[in-house]
Amino acid sequence: MSDPNVTTPAKIGALLLSERSRLMPASPIRKLVPFAEAARKRGITVYGLNIGQPDIPTPPEFLAAVRAFSAPVLAYGHSQGHAELLTAFSRYYRNIGLDIPVEQIQITTGGSEAILFALTIIANPGDEIIVFEPYYTNYMGFAVEAGVKLVPLATDPGQGYGLPPLEKIEQKITGRTRAILLCSPNNPTGTLLSREVMGGIADLARRKNVFVLSDEVYREFCYTGKHTSIWEFEEIAERAIMLDSISKRYSACGARVGCLASRNKQVMDAALRLGQARLCSPTIEQIAAARVMDLPQSYYTALADEYRGRRDTIVDLFNKIPGCFCRKPLGAFYFMGTFPVADIEDFCRWMLTDFSYENQTVMIAPGPGFYATPGMGKNEARIAYVLEKEKLIRAMRALRLGLAEYQQTH
Amino acid sequence: MSDPNVTTPAKIGALLLSERSRLMPASPIRKLVPFAEAARKRGITVYGLNIGQPDIPTPPEFLAAVRAFSAPVLAYGHSQGHAELLTAFSRYYRNIGLDIPVEQIQITTGGSEAILFALTIIANPGDEIIVFEPYYTNYMGFAVEAGVKLVPLATDPGQGYGLPPLEKIEQKITGRTRAILLCSPNNPTGTLLSREVMGGIADLARRKNVFVLSDEVYREFCYTGKHTSIWEFEEIAERAIMLDSISKRYSACGARVGCLASRNKQVMDAALRLGQARLCSPTIEQIAAARVMDLPQSYYTALADEYRGRRDTIVDLFNKIPGCFCRKPLGAFYFMGTFPVADIEDFCRWMLTDFSYENQTVMIAPGPGFYATPGMGKNEARIAYVLEKEKLIRAMRALRLGLAEYQQTH
Repeated sequence: MSDPNVTTPAKIGALLLSERSRLMPASPIRKLVPFAEAARKRGITVYGLNIGQPDIPTPPEFLAAVRAFSAPVLAYGHSQGHAELLTAFSRYYRNIGLDIPVEQIQITTGGSEAILFALTIIANPGDEIIVFEPYYTNYMGFAVEAGVKLVPLATDPGQGYGLPPLEKIEQKITGRTRAILLCSPNNPTGTLLSREVMGGIADLARRKNVFVLSDEVYREFCYTGKHTSIWEFEEIAERAIMLDSISKRYSACGARVGCLASRNKQVMDAALRLGQARLCSPTIEQIAAARVMDLPQSYYTALADEYRGRRDTIVDLFNKIPGCFCRKPLGAFYFMGTFPVADIEDFCRWMLTDFSYENQTVMIAPGPGFYATPGMGKNEARIAYVLEKEKLIRAMRALRLGLAEYQQTH
Repeated sequence: MSDPNVTTPAKIGALLLSERSRLMPASPIRKLVPFAEAARKRGITVYGLNIGQPDIPTPPEFLAAVRAFSAPVLAYGHSQGHAELLTAFSRYYRNIGLDIPVEQIQITTGGSEAILFALTIIANPGDEIIVFEPYYTNYMGFAVEAGVKLVPLATDPGQGYGLPPLEKIEQKITGRTRAILLCSPNNPTGTLLSREVMGGIADLARRKNVFVLSDEVYREFCYTGKHTSIWEFEEIAERAIMLDSISKRYSACGARVGCLASRNKQVMDAALRLGQARLCSPTIEQIAAARVMDLPQSYYTALADEYRGRRDTIVDLFNKIPGCFCRKPLGAFYFMGTFPVADIEDFCRWMLTDFSYENQTVMIAPGPGFYATPGMGKNEARIAYVLEKEKLIRAMRALRLGLAEYQQTH
C-alpha cells in the first residue's frame, strides 16, 4: 500500500479516479469465483472452501421472524439500531458474562461496517494500525477506504500463527499508531489468543495510549480452550472497541447485522454520527436477528461440536497430503495450510480450470491476499471447513490428487 | 469544514480520536427527535415533517416477497448485487427510457452507500466536490467520512433555489475539483432542473474534465415538468455517475437498497471492489425490491398525484402564514420555507418543548444543517410533506399558531 496521503490523482484512461480506488484490492476470496462458475458450467462439482459461508441452516427463529414481518410501511429505523436488537445484543452479552449496556452498542450493517466505522473514528488518513499477518483480508479494503495504513507483523506458521513477542509489537508502535487490531478466534488462521496474551496486548495498549480493536465474530467457535474478550480488561475500558457480527454464529451472512461496542463515550458518539449519515441499517434482518440472540447454550454447543468434528476430519486429511502442513487450529472455521508449491495463486486457479477427479474439484483462497507484505503467503492458502464432513473428505481427496497432478506437470 | 488533510489527531479526553470523527456532523434532521419523543410522552401529537419518511404503504408485492423468503441458509450474496435485482433495475430503467445494462449497475446498501462509494472512487482526501446550497444534509457526512471537501455554491430562495449561472459554477472549479453534485428533483428544495440546465452542467463537466454525480432518487416525484436524467447526456458517458435508491418511490426507506450506475468501466470496477470489501448488501430486501421494479406506470402516476395534492395543500397554507414564504416546489416531497425568525434552530426546538395547540405540534428540520456556509439558513427550515392532507392541514395550523406565539414571546 503506497502512502494514502498522496493527493495527486491517478490518471486512469481519460479521467481521474482516486488513488484509493486504484489501491482498493479485489477480494482474494472471491476473485477465483468466475473460474469456479465456469467449472460448474462444465458439470464439475466445486467444493467451496474459499469463503466463510457455513452450510448450517439459519435458525428457524430468524426465518420465522422474517416471514412474520407485517409493518405496512418499511420505514427508516433508529440510526443506533433497532431497539429490540440493541436490547437483545445486550442480553446476549450478559449471558456470556459481558456487561454491555445498550448505550455502549452501535448496530452496524454487518461486521464490515463495524470495522470501517472503527477505523474512521480512531484514525486520520495516514495513521497506522498494527495487524498480524495473515489477517482477515478485508481489513486491507477498509484501511484503503479509510486512508489508514496497516502495519503488518508476521506470525509464524510453525508456531500456529500465534502473536509475536510483545517487544516486537512494541517496536512497531510509532507516533502515528492508533490501534492494535486483534481477531480471536482468528480468521484466517484459527488461532485462539489466551487470556495472558490478550492481557499483554491490553497492557501494551494502556502504556502506549493506543486503542485495541477486537474482532470477536468467531467467539462461539472455540474447540480447544476458552475465548477471551477484550471487554474483560476493564483497565483499558476507554481503549477497547469490540467488533461483532451475527453472520457466523447464526449462519446469517446475508443478513449484514453486526455491531461495534465500546465503553468510550466519544467513540460511541462518533459511531452514532456515522450511523446517522447512512440513516439506518436494514430493518427486516435487524428484527429477525433480535429473535435469535436468546438461543439456549445447547445451540452454541452443538454448533461448536459440529465444527470441531469437521476440523478434526479436515486437518487430519490435509496433513496426510504429501508436503502439506497445518497446525490444528483452536477456533473459528478456517486454517492456513502450507503447500509444496511456488505459486499458490496459480495452483488454486489450476484446480478450477484444469483439474477434476470424478467430476469434483475444490476452491480454496490463495494466501497472498491475507498478507500486506509483498511476497508473503505464496505457498499458503486459507481453507474454510464450512461444509459437512462427507464433502470435506471428498474435497481433501480432490486436493490431494490435484496437487499430485499439478506437481507432475509444473 | 476544516482541512481534511490535517493529520494531527484531535485530543478528546484522554484518548485520540480522528479529526473526521470530530467533524462528522450530527444529523440536523434527527437531532430534534429527543425533544419530539419527550413531547409525545407528554401526550402531544407531533406531526413529523422533519424527515423524508413517507406514510404511503410499501407495495404489497415487496412485503409478500419478504414473507415468502424460504432459503434454509441466509447466505452471502454477490458483491455487485442480487442477480434478480440487477436485472430488475435494468428493466426498470429501460421502462423509463434509460438503457442501463446490468454491468453498469452496482447495488448499494441504500442510496447512502452509493454516495459514499462515488465520493471514495473519484476523489482523494482534500479534493473538492461542488454542491449547491441548500443540499441533502448527509452529503456533508459522507464528505467528512471520505475526507472530501464540499465546495458550496448558494442558490437563491427568491428564485426557487435554481442553480446559479454556469459562469459562477465554472469559477468554483479548481485543480482539486473532481465533480459537480446534482440532485433533481431536489432534496431539500423541491427544485427540478430543466433539460437545458442539466445540459449546461454536462457541457461544463466535459470542458473541465470533472465528473457529474447525479442523485435521482426522487425521479418519479415530478409535479410540474419532466425529469431529466444525467444518463441522457451520452457525451459525458464517462463522466456521469447516477445515484439511486428505492427508498422513496417504493416507500421502503428501511430496506436500504440503492444503486450506483455509470458507463465508466473504471468507476464500476472500483465500485465492485468497494462492494467486495463489505461482501454484499442485505439479501432479503434485495430479493423483495426486485419484485416491485415492474410495477405499472399507474403506480407511479398515483404516487405523484397524491404528492402533488399534498404539495398544493401545504404550500398554500404555508404561504398564508404571516412572514413565511416558499416558491411552489416542482418535485420531490420537500420545500425550504423562509420564516420571520432570527434563529430557526431555537424556533424548531421551542415548537417541541414549549408549544402545543389542541395537544398538537409539528417537527420540521432547521435550515442551517442543509448549508456548509456558516450563518446560512438561519431563517429557513425544510418541510417534508410526507403525511396525508388532513395531517398537513393540522400541522400548518400548529405552525401558524406556534409562530405567532413565538414571535410574541421572543
